[in-house]
Amino acid sequence: MAKRIIVVGSGAAGMTAASSARGADRDAEIIVITAEEHISYSPCAIPFVLEGKIKDFSSIIMHDPEFYRRERGIDVRTRTTVTSVDVDKKAVTTNDGSSLPYDSLIIATGGTVFVPPIEGSTLPGVFRVRFIQDGMDVQKALPSARSVVVAGAGVIGLEIAVALRHAGKDVTVVEMFPQVIPRICDQDMAKEVQTYMEGLGIRFVMSTPMGAIKGNGKVESVFAGVTEIPCDMVIMATGVRANLEIPTAMGLEIGPLGAVRVSATLQPYRKGRLVRDVYLAGDVVMCESAAVPGPTMSQLGATAVRQGRVAGLNAAGGYATFPPVLSAWISQIGDVQVGGTGLSRGLADYYGVNVVEGRATGLTRARYYPGGKKLMVKLIADRETHRLLGGQIVAGEEVTGRINWLTAAIMKGVTAEEFVSSFENAYCPPTSMVKDVVNVAAEDLVQRLR
Amino acid sequence: MAKRIIVVGSGAAGMTAASSARGADRDAEIIVITAEEHISYSPCAIPFVLEGKIKDFSSIIMHDPEFYRRERGIDVRTRTTVTSVDVDKKAVTTNDGSSLPYDSLIIATGGTVFVPPIEGSTLPGVFRVRFIQDGMDVQKALPSARSVVVAGAGVIGLEIAVALRHAGKDVTVVEMFPQVIPRICDQDMAKEVQTYMEGLGIRFVMSTPMGAIKGNGKVESVFAGVTEIPCDMVIMATGVRANLEIPTAMGLEIGPLGAVRVSATLQPYRKGRLVRDVYLAGDVVMCESAAVPGPTMSQLGATAVRQGRVAGLNAAGGYATFPPVLSAWISQIGDVQVGGTGLSRGLADYYGVNVVEGRATGLTRARYYPGGKKLMVKLIADRETHRLLGGQIVAGEEVTGRINWLTAAIMKGVTAEEFVSSFENAYCPPTSMVKDVVNVAAEDLVQRLR
Repeated sequence: MAKRIIVVGSGAAGMTAASSARGADRDAEIIVITAEEHISYSPCAIPFVLEGKIKDFSSIIMHDPEFYRRERGIDVRTRTTVTSVDVDKKAVTTNDGSSLPYDSLIIATGGTVFVPPIEGSTLPGVFRVRFIQDGMDVQKALPSARSVVVAGAGVIGLEIAVALRHAGKDVTVVEMFPQVIPRICDQDMAKEVQTYMEGLGIRFVMSTPMGAIKGNGKVESVFAGVTEIPCDMVIMATGVRANLEIPTAMGLEIGPLGAVRVSATLQPYRKGRLVRDVYLAGDVVMCESAAVPGPTMSQLGATAVRQGRVAGLNAAGGYATFPPVLSAWISQIGDVQVGGTGLSRGLADYYGVNVVEGRATGLTRARYYPGGKKLMVKLIADRETHRLLGGQIVAGEEVTGRINWLTAAIMKGVTAEEFVSSFENAYCPPTSMVKDVVNVAAEDLVQRLR
Repeated sequence: MAKRIIVVGSGAAGMTAASSARGADRDAEIIVITAEEHISYSPCAIPFVLEGKIKDFSSIIMHDPEFYRRERGIDVRTRTTVTSVDVDKKAVTTNDGSSLPYDSLIIATGGTVFVPPIEGSTLPGVFRVRFIQDGMDVQKALPSARSVVVAGAGVIGLEIAVALRHAGKDVTVVEMFPQVIPRICDQDMAKEVQTYMEGLGIRFVMSTPMGAIKGNGKVESVFAGVTEIPCDMVIMATGVRANLEIPTAMGLEIGPLGAVRVSATLQPYRKGRLVRDVYLAGDVVMCESAAVPGPTMSQLGATAVRQGRVAGLNAAGGYATFPPVLSAWISQIGDVQVGGTGLSRGLADYYGVNVVEGRATGLTRARYYPGGKKLMVKLIADRETHRLLGGQIVAGEEVTGRINWLTAAIMKGVTAEEFVSSFENAYCPPTSMVKDVVNVAAEDLVQRLR
C-alpha cells in the first residue's frame, strides 16, 4: 500500500520537502496542510515588491496548489490548520474535523515575527512583513501613509526601510542595539550600510527600545525611548521566532535557542528519545554551527530548502543528513549588497572564541577599469588555530559568489595562511583586481595573527 | 653588507617579486632589469583599451620606474637586456657591458606570443598583443584598417575580436581547433560564447590552420586553409610560449611543457641539482596541477603575482612555497563572462582521468527579479572518487566569485555529494536564486555519478 506523507506548512521548507519526497517515492500519497491561501512564494521578495523592483505580488508566487496536484501529485490543503498530532497513533487532526493517519510527518511550521508586547501594537497601521498577505496589506495602506517607523534594523527591516524611502515616505528606523544588522554583522561593516541609508534620507534612532505606539483608532506616533516620533505606519521587523505551538503540543524537545532540537536526520526528540517517522525543516528547527561546537539558528530561505530536501528524502524512506551550518546570508539594500558567513565578532564573543580580524578595501574591477564598485572584506580567524571562522563583505556588486567562496573555505577548516598560499582567484580587469580583495584581507589577517 | 637581489623582467611576476623582497628585507639592494620601456602595467587590459572601455594606455600603467626608486628603493633599469648569467660566479651581464654580482637572482622573463613560421608573418599590418607597445601599435594602425583577421580563438583572441568589432571593424577569427577557448573550456560552454560573438557579426573559420599572409608591402589577405580572406590587419593571438633564452643559456632544466621546471620554492634545476639563490616566477615557469598529479602551465596574471610573492620572499632569505594550481581563469567577452577552474573535459582526457559531467542553467537573480542574467554551470568530477576536479561558468555577471568558490572546493578535495549536502549559498532575490545554479549543477552531477 502507498505510504502517506503529511507535511505541515507550505513555505520553502514544506514545499521542498513535499517535492523531494515525491522525487524519492513515486507512489506515496503526499498531503500538505497549510493555514495560508498562497503557497510557494518567496517571503524574502516582499520588500522588493514594495520597492517596485518586482512588478507585483503575483510575480513572486511560483506555483499554485493546482500545479502541485497536477504536476507532482501533491495534495495541498490551504486555509487548513492542524489542531492536534498524535505521535503514538501517528495521526493528524485538522480544523475541519478530519483525522489523517500518516506514515511520515514533516513539521515545517516556520516562524513568525516576534512583536514585543508594547502598548498599541495591535492598532490599525501596525504591520509586520512575513507572509505575502502582510505585504499586500502594507502595499494597500501605503498610499495614505506619509511617515513610517520601522522597528528593527535587521536585514528585513533595512530592506523595507529602503523600499519605503524609495516610495517617497519619511522613514525612521528604531533599533535596540547600537548598530544595524546586529549579531550577524559587525559594527565596522554595519556602519557602511547605515551611512549609505542615511544618505538616502532615512533616519536612525539607535540603542533605543521601541516604546508605546500611540494613536486614536490608528497609529499616530511611536515612542522610541522618551522621544515621540509622529508617523502613520509602523512596520514590526523585530525578528523571527519559531512557531512552536504544534511541536510543543506534540511534546517535542525545544532547544536552548527557542527552536526544536533535531538529530542530523532532522528528527525531533521526545522524553529523551528520537521520535520515529517525524521530521522537521525550516525556521522551526535549531541547527548546529559549523564554525564552533554549539547550537545556532539559521532562519534562511536557502537553509529551509536544504533542510526540506533532507526531511523529504527521509520521510520517503531514504537516508540523508543535514550538516552543521555557517548560515551564509546576503541582503540587497538599495545599491549596496551586504553579506556574511560563519562567525561575526559578536557571535565569536557569544561562543567564547578568541578571534583575530583582517580587513581590506578595494574594488570589484581593476582600479583603471571604469564602473568598479567599492568592495570591503572582513575576515575572522581563531587566534589559536588560525582557522577561518567567518567573513563579511559590503560592496555594490559581486558579493554572493565571494560569500559562497568564504563559506566553502570555512566549511573545510582552512587557515588564514593556507588561504593566502593556495586559494587562487580568477582575474580579468573588468571582473576583479589581480589579487582579489578577499585574498588581500586574508594577507592582512595573516599579518595580524603573527 | 646589504644583499643584492637582481630581478630579470618587469611584468607582474618580476615587479611583485621585487616589492615582496623589499617587504622582507629593508636593506637589500634590489635591481630590476627589463628590455621594456613601460613597466608595471596590466597586459590583460590591452583588449579593453582597444575596445574603448578603458580611456587610454597610460591608464593601465600603475607606476613608473621613478615611483619604484622613490617609494620602494627599487632600481628599475629599463631598455636593458641581460646578455649572460654566470650561475657559478653569481653574476649577470647586461647589454651595456656591466657585470652585476648578485646574492639572489629572480628570473621572470615571461612569455611571448608564439607566431607560427608562415609566409608573410612579418609583413606590416601583422600585430600581436602582448606588450603595451603592441597595443599602442594596433591602436595607431586601427583607423586605416577595415577588415581584421584574428588568428587564435583563445580568450585574448576573443577579447580582441570583440574590441575590434565594437570599433566598427569587419572581424574574422581563424582557429585551428573546432571550438573557441580550446583546451581550458569545453565545447558545450565554448559554443555559448561563439554564438554570442556571431550575434555581434564576428565571423569564425574553425578547424582551420592559419596559412600564408599575403600582401604587397603590407597585409592584403590571409589564407585560412584554402580560403582567402581579404583583410588589412592580422592579429596573432596564437598562444604564449615561455621565454627560455636566458634559462636555456644558464643550463636550467626545461620541463615537458616547454617551461622551466622548478621546486616548490620556485628554484630551478641544473644537471639534476637544485640551483641555489635562483628563483623563477610567472609565465616562464611550469607548475604542478592541483587537480591531478602532473605538470601544467598556468600563464595567468594572478598566478604571476602569487609566484612573484614567493620568489621575492625566498630571494630575500625567507621561506615560502608555491603550491599546485587549478589555474582559475575568467574572461569578459562583450557582455558575456566565461570562466573556469581545474580540469576541463579536454584536460581530463589529456591526463587520462575518467570524469563525469553535471550541468545546470538558471539565472543570476531570482526568476521573478528583473534584470537577472542567464547563468550556465558545468562541473566535472572523478568517476571513481566523486571528487570535484573542474568547473566552467558562462553568465552575464557574477562569475568571478563563483569560480573562486569552485576553486576552493576543488582545492580541498570536496566530493560532489559533500558539495550538495554541505555547501551553502547566500540568497537574496536580487543577488541569486534560492538554490544557486552551482548547487543545482552539483545535484545533477550526483545523479550522473550514480
